[in-house]
Amino acid sequence: MPDARFVPAPADGVLPDGFFSTTNLPTFVRINGAWIAPREPRMDAGIVKDQGGALWVREGRRLKKGDLVAVGEKEDGSEGIFVQTHLVPHGADPDAFAFMSSEVSREKPIDYALMAHILIEERDRGGYPIWVTGPALVHSRARADMVWFIENGFVSALLAGNAVAVHDIEASIFGTTLGMTRTGEATTGGHGLHMRAINRVRAAGSINAAVEQGVIKDGIMHACVLKGVPFVLTGSIRDDGPLPEVITDSLAAQDAMKRHTTRATMAVLIATALHAIATGNMLPAFVTEKDGSLRELPTICVDSSEFVVSKLKDRGTHQAFGVVTNAQDFMHILRLYVERELMDRKTGKAAAQTSRVSA
Amino acid sequence: MPDARFVPAPADGVLPDGFFSTTNLPTFVRINGAWIAPREPRMDAGIVKDQGGALWVREGRRLKKGDLVAVGEKEDGSEGIFVQTHLVPHGADPDAFAFMSSEVSREKPIDYALMAHILIEERDRGGYPIWVTGPALVHSRARADMVWFIENGFVSALLAGNAVAVHDIEASIFGTTLGMTRTGEATTGGHGLHMRAINRVRAAGSINAAVEQGVIKDGIMHACVLKGVPFVLTGSIRDDGPLPEVITDSLAAQDAMKRHTTRATMAVLIATALHAIATGNMLPAFVTEKDGSLRELPTICVDSSEFVVSKLKDRGTHQAFGVVTNAQDFMHILRLYVERELMDRKTGKAAAQTSRVSA
Amino acid sequence: MPDARFVPAPADGVLPDGFFSTTNLPTFVRINGAWIAPREPRMDAGIVKDQGGALWVREGRRLKKGDLVAVGEKEDGSEGIFVQTHLVPHGADPDAFAFMSSEVSREKPIDYALMAHILIEERDRGGYPIWVTGPALVHSRARADMVWFIENGFVSALLAGNAVAVHDIEASIFGTTLGMTRTGEATTGGHGLHMRAINRVRAAGSINAAVEQGVIKDGIMHACVLKGVPFVLTGSIRDDGPLPEVITDSLAAQDAMKRHTTRATMAVLIATALHAIATGNMLPAFVTEKDGSLRELPTICVDSSEFVVSKLKDRGTHQAFGVVTNAQDFMHILRLYVERELMDRKTGKAAAQTSRVSA
Amino acid sequence: MPDARFVPAPADGVLPDGFFSTTNLPTFVRINGAWIAPREPRMDAGIVKDQGGALWVREGRRLKKGDLVAVGEKEDGSEGIFVQTHLVPHGADPDAFAFMSSEVSREKPIDYALMAHILIEERDRGGYPIWVTGPALVHSRARADMVWFIENGFVSALLAGNAVAVHDIEASIFGTTLGMTRTGEATTGGHGLHMRAINRVRAAGSINAAVEQGVIKDGIMHACVLKGVPFVLTGSIRDDGPLPEVITDSLAAQDAMKRHTTRATMAVLIATALHAIATGNMLPAFVTEKDGSLRELPTICVDSSEFVVSKLKDRGTHQAFGVVTNAQDFMHILRLYVERELMDRKTGKAAAQTSRVSA
Repeated sequence: MPDARFVPAPADGVLPDGFFSTTNLPTFVRINGAWIAPREPRMDAGIVKDQGGALWVREGRRLKKGDLVAVGEKEDGSEGIFVQTHLVPHGADPDAFAFMSSEVSREKPIDYALMAHILIEERDRGGYPIWVTGPALVHSRARADMVWFIENGFVSALLAGNAVAVHDIEASIFGTTLGMTRTGEATTGGHGLHMRAINRVRAAGSINAAVEQGVIKDGIMHACVLKGVPFVLTGSIRDDGPLPEVITDSLAAQDAMKRHTTRATMAVLIATALHAIATGNMLPAFVTEKDGSLRELPTICVDSSEFVVSKLKDRGTHQAFGVVTNAQDFMHILRLYVERELMDRKTGKAAAQTSRVSA
Repeated sequence: MPDARFVPAPADGVLPDGFFSTTNLPTFVRINGAWIAPREPRMDAGIVKDQGGALWVREGRRLKKGDLVAVGEKEDGSEGIFVQTHLVPHGADPDAFAFMSSEVSREKPIDYALMAHILIEERDRGGYPIWVTGPALVHSRARADMVWFIENGFVSALLAGNAVAVHDIEASIFGTTLGMTRTGEATTGGHGLHMRAINRVRAAGSINAAVEQGVIKDGIMHACVLKGVPFVLTGSIRDDGPLPEVITDSLAAQDAMKRHTTRATMAVLIATALHAIATGNMLPAFVTEKDGSLRELPTICVDSSEFVVSKLKDRGTHQAFGVVTNAQDFMHILRLYVERELMDRKTGKAAAQTSRVSA
Repeated sequence: MPDARFVPAPADGVLPDGFFSTTNLPTFVRINGAWIAPREPRMDAGIVKDQGGALWVREGRRLKKGDLVAVGEKEDGSEGIFVQTHLVPHGADPDAFAFMSSEVSREKPIDYALMAHILIEERDRGGYPIWVTGPALVHSRARADMVWFIENGFVSALLAGNAVAVHDIEASIFGTTLGMTRTGEATTGGHGLHMRAINRVRAAGSINAAVEQGVIKDGIMHACVLKGVPFVLTGSIRDDGPLPEVITDSLAAQDAMKRHTTRATMAVLIATALHAIATGNMLPAFVTEKDGSLRELPTICVDSSEFVVSKLKDRGTHQAFGVVTNAQDFMHILRLYVERELMDRKTGKAAAQTSRVSA
Repeated sequence: MPDARFVPAPADGVLPDGFFSTTNLPTFVRINGAWIAPREPRMDAGIVKDQGGALWVREGRRLKKGDLVAVGEKEDGSEGIFVQTHLVPHGADPDAFAFMSSEVSREKPIDYALMAHILIEERDRGGYPIWVTGPALVHSRARADMVWFIENGFVSALLAGNAVAVHDIEASIFGTTLGMTRTGEATTGGHGLHMRAINRVRAAGSINAAVEQGVIKDGIMHACVLKGVPFVLTGSIRDDGPLPEVITDSLAAQDAMKRHTTRATMAVLIATALHAIATGNMLPAFVTEKDGSLRELPTICVDSSEFVVSKLKDRGTHQAFGVVTNAQDFMHILRLYVERELMDRKTGKAAAQTSRVSA
């Protein structure tokens, strides 16, 4: 191993190019063949050799022009500086100190172009993308976007609870969800509107019948019925009503869900802890292609908090890619990117598009 | 007050039209002039009179055809049913039991059309919208959208901390933020890149100089410099560097911010608890027009969690309208809606647009 | 209305006693009978009259000794200062600008003494407190505390899902929960332990039988069986197994829960969105005493995030008192306070205790 | 590798002892020397061989007595069952499918006994534990517990912002924090009380002087002054006042903090993102003992949400142990455990205690 190299600071408060940027891990600098630990260690600073030869970890702002600063980017000793990475934990990659190594964080970028691309690919090769959604999707008016995905063939099956259908149907009949208007105001008397919506469907006999009779005129359930997309509505103890199609026995409901998870080639889980974890329980982490080859099953989990995504992973669905955002915004932007790629493909930019995604 | 009216259930498990939908508050039904409390009270159910004349709160699904069900929508006794609203708390409006009455919730719809409209109006009448942003804005790649708002005249001043500028400049020079690539991967050695970015600007002498010298080639700070939009970068104990323009004394920093809050006619606070609350402290809740009239100062607060918005309100900035979402997605959709309204105005749809917003 | 009164600042940067502390709302100061709006309004500052008679809102730190500062605490004009509270929203109380007016916040103190007192009172007068719990309670080792509450008569019924019992029984048989040791480490092969625990109970035929046969030796379900406390385990689509006693039909499960909510005189909802909201749906907000008088039904909702409590309220359970904390810590401290009050009562400090609580 | 072994189910819906519990990863079962993938893969189930010899992944509840079920616990093929762990991500340990492998979660148990033990050890050997706290500590009345830790020698230095001292002093003078009473109610006129508290200290000249003059009679700052515990109050743009001792220049403030982080042998970071990350920036991840040996620096980070802890780690403070709970509850229970261990030591249970912790 060589000795470390030192270069003078070019100006007060400015480090020389190529300065070694410190970490908070034990660090040793080789001088005349001896490995020395600089004093006052901290991250995000430089290493300075004072006139007496002592080494200090020092913030760049505290440097004087001409101060001798260690240079090098390697932490393995090959440039005379060694960082001991095994005393204390220091990130997901056991060989390197790193920032931003957590798995799930709202600070991570969201790659909508990639998700849109995968979704289109799945549709176009006859895959079976399943969508699993919580009521926030309807509540916060991503309803129109969900309808668009259904109508354009991106949804092979919809798995949800009673509440998704109830809010969707209340919106169709009364223009509200839980009595809240589209601009978010609570309305007097509005607390009964979801009950009145449920009652009309029960009177009609089924969601299908209510669509046929014109009771339900638009929305998610309406699109599923018209487009022939199968839906599984599973019951829970929170349910009002419930709507006629709801499977109230939880084991029968699991079996109904499993008929779709077994066929799934992609899963989009939005704003639901209960249904996302239930689906994760039944969903293989991989797809078996017709030729027997295996590939990871793309699984996207969208929630407002890191917690739901982490919980899903903690129950074994490690392949889930977490998107920490609002469900309404997710739907809107994902649709936008899908529309963009479809437009690009039409206009011959497909090749460029694909390479942009993979780049 | 009249007696309550009862109507037979039209089928098993189906309530009659106009049924009274119960709350969890003390409820009294008038029968032969006497006010009677039904048994087994709960919300979201009907009120049934059995053959012995006893009253029961009963879920719709448990009804038999012909069961007598109370009808009416008023809760003030005028239809023979009285709900006592003053024994227990029951929502923000003290006169009515209601759902969805919380002030800040991810379940509330986000009215992007309205926000876009207000922003355009403020720009076009020469208002002074200030933007206060946290580093997540850069971290999660809403950078291009922020540049767009600056270049198109929607930003009268930018108030932020050292980190916003550091991440933005790291992205310009190295293509990463805190060493994380645009697709969210941590990179080996990446932990030092923000330090190298800071050091280059310190070597150049200022952000302005670094833009002129071509060290900073694009991004938020670049756009501010080129467009002449004033920015205030305020220091904190978390700062690396800091960058040359950062005001490290917190009282001087407050004074610099206040020069803009005093002129503000609108405030957009994105993904920052520290700067949002600091701005809220100094920001009047109202705008004084030239003719002396007063109007509420539109204040939008965007954060991933309800907590920051509630905290801002708990410190007195009650006029803040909370948007619970990811900063990247917020920026992208807000820009989309602004672009749409501008396009509509060009193509003569302005009148329609405006009425849609106000509807 | 009188004119406002001004008093000189006693020293540089120091306001006089009784200074008027500003808000961010429109404010008018009466001088010579005219109402004047001070310039540069902001909250948390004083109002200074300069030598030319102009009024400024100014931070205390910027004062010079002798500067004339407005004094008064009333905002209704009666001391010459008027704050206009109706232009912009300014808190829950429509008549006063206030801090800390949100309903649910981790920043609110938790009054354990009061909760402990209510719980003891309910037990001692033969009330019917129901406990509704999520799996975090077991997961994070509040198990021993829950057992203590059951054994000491504070639990009239336990309402929970399959997972609570599964984790509890896995802990009894294998000493882990979802394969995680008591100190929080994941164990290799541990992912199957909850399945083995379920299988043993299914082999025994029931939880009761498994307790009798010595398969289950301690814990929450064990305590319920020994103490004769009724439990309702309701099924969901997430369930593994399920355990034999689990009611898999959600409507039958609701009916089983309602038999307890109808009798409840208090409810403690811990770390469960699904079961808390389901219970809230069925729970009256009040208790009817034997003499026909009504009182609010004490409802405590504990969760790690403000969101679950707000959601519960947004579904109509407005009487819920929210405690934003970790379930394990809540249980431990609540038990401590209950033990303390019981000890105080024994040693004759009961009167003092009670008055302390009400003070 | 041997063939897999199959054992008949002992009863309907019951798996045989030692059954293989499935994961969601690609799985192969050896039969007559060939590796076969069972159909309908999912986690948390068994593997059944039907009469035709076909293999199925099947939930235990669906078994019939006598069905042949694969047994074995190894996933490496040594018992005839092989799980392919490298196709898809499956947890933190790259060699095993596991539950509960996330680093930071409210579902993880909190080992108060261990933290209490470390804290006592640090104090007793003359270590230098630094405490870094946010205002929630005072706001939510953990104030008395913090005073106890100071008075009993567990705090070598207190690092905080202006707000911690302001709330603490408002509580001492007026009995409120931000005008909120000890039971959490907002008070009319209360919004000015923190300003009045600050003003009194500014009039006294310093916190030290205010303690001496009897203006401040109790609380955290009072205990620091009396006990001679150094405190560093660092300024921010959110500060009201500020109090006289606050260091308003952020670089001077960093230098003042660093004088303590350099000496630190332990760090407790409570309810503050800003100060925790600032401290983490300056804190080595290790302690250098007098003999030159190195050990990890115990770092505890307490916050209501996973996000702050993850963010701290994402900025490089990987050694932080995260505790997701309410600050008030954390303080109360930690004190309780410290008191318990001190009592045990007095009464000679020290040896037992220590072994319990290490067990």
